[in-house]
Amino acid sequence: MKFICSQKQLASAITIVQKAVSSKTTLPILKGILLETVGQKLKLVGTDLEIGIEQTIDAEILSEGSIVISSKILGEIIRKLPDAEVEFSIDNDHNTVIHCENSEFTLVGQPAVEFPELPVVEEEHAYQISQDLFKNMIRQTAFATALDETRPILTGVLMEIAENSINMVALDGYRLAFRQGTIKSYENSRAVIPGKTLNEIHRIISDEDTADVELFFTDKHVLFQMKDIKVISRLLEGEFINYKQILPKEYKSRVKVKTRNLLDSMERASLLAKEGKNNLVKFSIKDETMTITSNAEIGRVYETLNIELEGQDLDIGFNSKYFLDVLKIIDSEEIYLEFTTNVSPCIVKPTDTQNYTYLILPVRLAN
Amino acid sequence: MKFICSQKQLASAITIVQKAVSSKTTLPILKGILLETVGQKLKLVGTDLEIGIEQTIDAEILSEGSIVISSKILGEIIRKLPDAEVEFSIDNDHNTVIHCENSEFTLVGQPAVEFPELPVVEEEHAYQISQDLFKNMIRQTAFATALDETRPILTGVLMEIAENSINMVALDGYRLAFRQGTIKSYENSRAVIPGKTLNEIHRIISDEDTADVELFFTDKHVLFQMKDIKVISRLLEGEFINYKQILPKEYKSRVKVKTRNLLDSMERASLLAKEGKNNLVKFSIKDETMTITSNAEIGRVYETLNIELEGQDLDIGFNSKYFLDVLKIIDSEEIYLEFTTNVSPCIVKPTDTQNYTYLILPVRLAN
Repeated sequence: MKFICSQKQLASAITIVQKAVSSKTTLPILKGILLETVGQKLKLVGTDLEIGIEQTIDAEILSEGSIVISSKILGEIIRKLPDAEVEFSIDNDHNTVIHCENSEFTLVGQPAVEFPELPVVEEEHAYQISQDLFKNMIRQTAFATALDETRPILTGVLMEIAENSINMVALDGYRLAFRQGTIKSYENSRAVIPGKTLNEIHRIISDEDTADVELFFTDKHVLFQMKDIKVISRLLEGEFINYKQILPKEYKSRVKVKTRNLLDSMERASLLAKEGKNNLVKFSIKDETMTITSNAEIGRVYETLNIELEGQDLDIGFNSKYFLDVLKIIDSEEIYLEFTTNVSPCIVKPTDTQNYTYLILPVRLAN
Repeated sequence: MKFICSQKQLASAITIVQKAVSSKTTLPILKGILLETVGQKLKLVGTDLEIGIEQTIDAEILSEGSIVISSKILGEIIRKLPDAEVEFSIDNDHNTVIHCENSEFTLVGQPAVEFPELPVVEEEHAYQISQDLFKNMIRQTAFATALDETRPILTGVLMEIAENSINMVALDGYRLAFRQGTIKSYENSRAVIPGKTLNEIHRIISDEDTADVELFFTDKHVLFQMKDIKVISRLLEGEFINYKQILPKEYKSRVKVKTRNLLDSMERASLLAKEGKNNLVKFSIKDETMTITSNAEIGRVYETLNIELEGQDLDIGFNSKYFLDVLKIIDSEEIYLEFTTNVSPCIVKPTDTQNYTYLILPVRLAN
């Protein structure tokens, strides 16, 4: 096997496929990246068996073949090489000589036959979604997935596609994030995608590239196709919670407030809240003012915000973390906070769009 | 005690004096910052008893006094406040109310009488040194101090002032860094300053401010005065090694090489060297070529560099870390490497100035 490619392209592709390589795997071959000639291209593959990432780059293929090389050391070497052509020569004993200008590295690779094949996903019936929209939908939902594995289904994001609409929903038992987008739907699909997979895709989607992302589903897997990159992920099995039942239909108090002001106040209030327990902050809503207070052993904080209130006055407590999370990802200048009682969920919504809803459970106040 | 000051100036001063506050101290009062009114100014002080940092900022003093407030929480709060005026009101029970626009924090401070006084250093007979020069001298020497405390004197940098010249020297038993500068010397001084102190001063010296740094010495302490900031540090006690004896006077081989090329090659070679033991890399110097090689279990590297050689061929081994450290801080385009034998020290020098000398001990090659 022998090929020549550009250092820049190779370094970039290694960085992408490395996102699927786990350093903690017990299967040594999975610590490697598969390099494989495909016609006049070079394919790179990394996988941890849950997620697989493939990128194809231009290369001058002098003789065909495939090899697996340690992801860590390969990445370090290629990134340190000058911006020039890199030549790989691999003999039948898997000795790999990497040559670039005045540098020559010799590494021992592993045979490619030991590398697991990625699941096959037939590339027909694609859903197409713009990169911008998809990136935003991930940003506004994936943070709300559960981190602990006690209920594995909650570590994923439910994706529902039907009637030219795509919904993404995540929840962890304390809060729920719902985002709707438009998509051309050839048929209906419903799948729970691991949060980790979506976070990796969010990182891969580049800000410059504007092509659509293509989605293909099988019963067990999903394939995301972005230009020359493929991400294949296992789906989560099990029944997702019927989230529509959880969302309240009405409210008794509605507060309109500037997103940025609320975020700043919450950040200050949570400085003391995080030193105490539960990150507890208390909202007191009355007329045109909302105060946010927090008490900890080391001190107290008292924040005042101008609001527009429609409905009843209210005192209610929250874990400030769940509020901070959502305030950081809402792009709208103003939001509504909708309340029913101080023991029922609060809804957070941008004022200028219907496509986002966030639900957060209150903390019962001692008093 | 009551005063009003600007959030920006206060946040900046806290960031500066915090560099002297240790979170690991066993004396709780030292986790705090002393705030003290001085005429129509506010003085902030942090110290860990080894180093003390003081900054004075403008303030409107409404009533005099002093208080100690937890450095961590005070810094977090002030940094999160809006860019506006901040008012502090402190009652006789040390309750501290911090008010800024719509935010009000209440913290309990500690009485200032418990805060240790910084050592008094009489401010006469100052040495003046330009910030740029001093910053560079620190950058080119302090990294070579010993990190472990088995020989405390080696954790410091020797400063010698005499005959309008200032020398700074650091060594750790494996390498030595020597930098010379010019200074107006009223008298001779010689002191060993903790590396930590100099690193903090390197961070404090701002790139915009161009005023000189003033140095004042006593037997036990040194004071660095920079505009409205004072840094007072204990000196290290004990006899510094007679470094002049260590520096070789002659060489048998002299190599001239481009600094950047050698750095790049060493960085690549050390990728494999660090996986092996001792970070061992081998130089083979012959005619117009220097090769750098490294062998590890995972692979080999072979780097070739164009050089100008004066004198004999040589094979010699080094710990790559000690070479990387110096190559990163030499600003000159080309350097000389001077060798005598492959078991005697190598000297690294810029080709365009006499003011810097670095010595590095070789690693004996197994052959």
